[in-house]
Amino acid sequence: MTGKFIVIEGLEGAGKTTARDAIVEVLAREGIDDVVFTREPGGTPLAEKLRHLIKYETEEPVTDKAELLMLYAARIQLVENVIKPALAAGKWVVADRHDLSSQAYQGGGRQIDAQLLQSLKQTVLGDFSPDLTLYLDLDPEIGLARARGRGELDRIEQQEIAFFQRTRARYLALVKDDPKAVIINAEQPIEQVRADIQSAVQNFVKNHQ
Amino acid sequence: MTGKFIVIEGLEGAGKTTARDAIVEVLAREGIDDVVFTREPGGTPLAEKLRHLIKYETEEPVTDKAELLMLYAARIQLVENVIKPALAAGKWVVADRHDLSSQAYQGGGRQIDAQLLQSLKQTVLGDFSPDLTLYLDLDPEIGLARARGRGELDRIEQQEIAFFQRTRARYLALVKDDPKAVIINAEQPIEQVRADIQSAVQNFVKNHQ
Repeated sequence: MTGKFIVIEGLEGAGKTTARDAIVEVLAREGIDDVVFTREPGGTPLAEKLRHLIKYETEEPVTDKAELLMLYAARIQLVENVIKPALAAGKWVVADRHDLSSQAYQGGGRQIDAQLLQSLKQTVLGDFSPDLTLYLDLDPEIGLARARGRGELDRIEQQEIAFFQRTRARYLALVKDDPKAVIINAEQPIEQVRADIQSAVQNFVKNHQ
Repeated sequence: MTGKFIVIEGLEGAGKTTARDAIVEVLAREGIDDVVFTREPGGTPLAEKLRHLIKYETEEPVTDKAELLMLYAARIQLVENVIKPALAAGKWVVADRHDLSSQAYQGGGRQIDAQLLQSLKQTVLGDFSPDLTLYLDLDPEIGLARARGRGELDRIEQQEIAFFQRTRARYLALVKDDPKAVIINAEQPIEQVRADIQSAVQNFVKNHQ
């Protein structure tokens, strides 16, 4: 039996690490111990080098298209060299971000043409997509305050607040139409967020056994 | 008056550096001294970092798509941050490789779907294209022998001979249909190659004054 691909999505400071831990607890309870964790951009040697260029390039202005192309280069390395082999070996994959981040940040935040984004996605990924997406929704002001509390912000995290508001709006618009996505209210107290995540994952596992 | 964009294309060892020097001589003779040189992949700080990843990544297998996306990321940085500003400032740009290399190497050599390549090109570059392309044509065996004589080969140059034969065939097929491209027989003695290049550039300059 092939594994399942669960993706955690959301703005900076939405609680993606907390979500990952909550998911792993449920999977362990269900006897699913062989879990592979990924993060994007990154997760392979080449993809991590691209992550560094995407986040910390300061010698010259990074064009929106170059950023997008580097994100997809990193993504296809991760999908082909890590995620697909893991799923084929029956492992479950829990991912910190995947394609929806590009749709939301580059499409919503950077306002790159949506059709261009869809065509690039189709070209690079074809029909590969998550089995379950958990989108942690919160006001960007709240998330950024949390992220700032953790330390310095990278090139993308330094955008103005309107960028993150557009990103959130695009996240919500896309998730609304995706039957495999669940919206989690990440402004709630952490225990409630955890509970909502665990109940969504519990449901998913029940329906896929 | 905006400048002109001249691109030198061809396999390894075809004589692209010799061609560049020959072109510059003609331009200087015509009073065109303000020339910008570029090479691909590379030519900007970020694009040179991507060049390094493209040519020397050895920690993991580089997927064909990731290679292609990195090439286009480097290309759009060079086009937006170097080539277009130079042309707008009235400078001429002489380029060691541009988009045709991807069409030939990734389309012909790697056999990536031609429609996918065209769609990516259109997405990234739009209608931007060279004013003159000089394609230095030669048998890959001859070119590779020359390139080997210069030192170690990079990841792409280490492909088997059939890869380069496919690349050459695609070059020829694409150049044949391009009214702005000239085929130079690069198997001739170097003085004849130089003379053919200079006559092609001379013609171009005459027609664009």
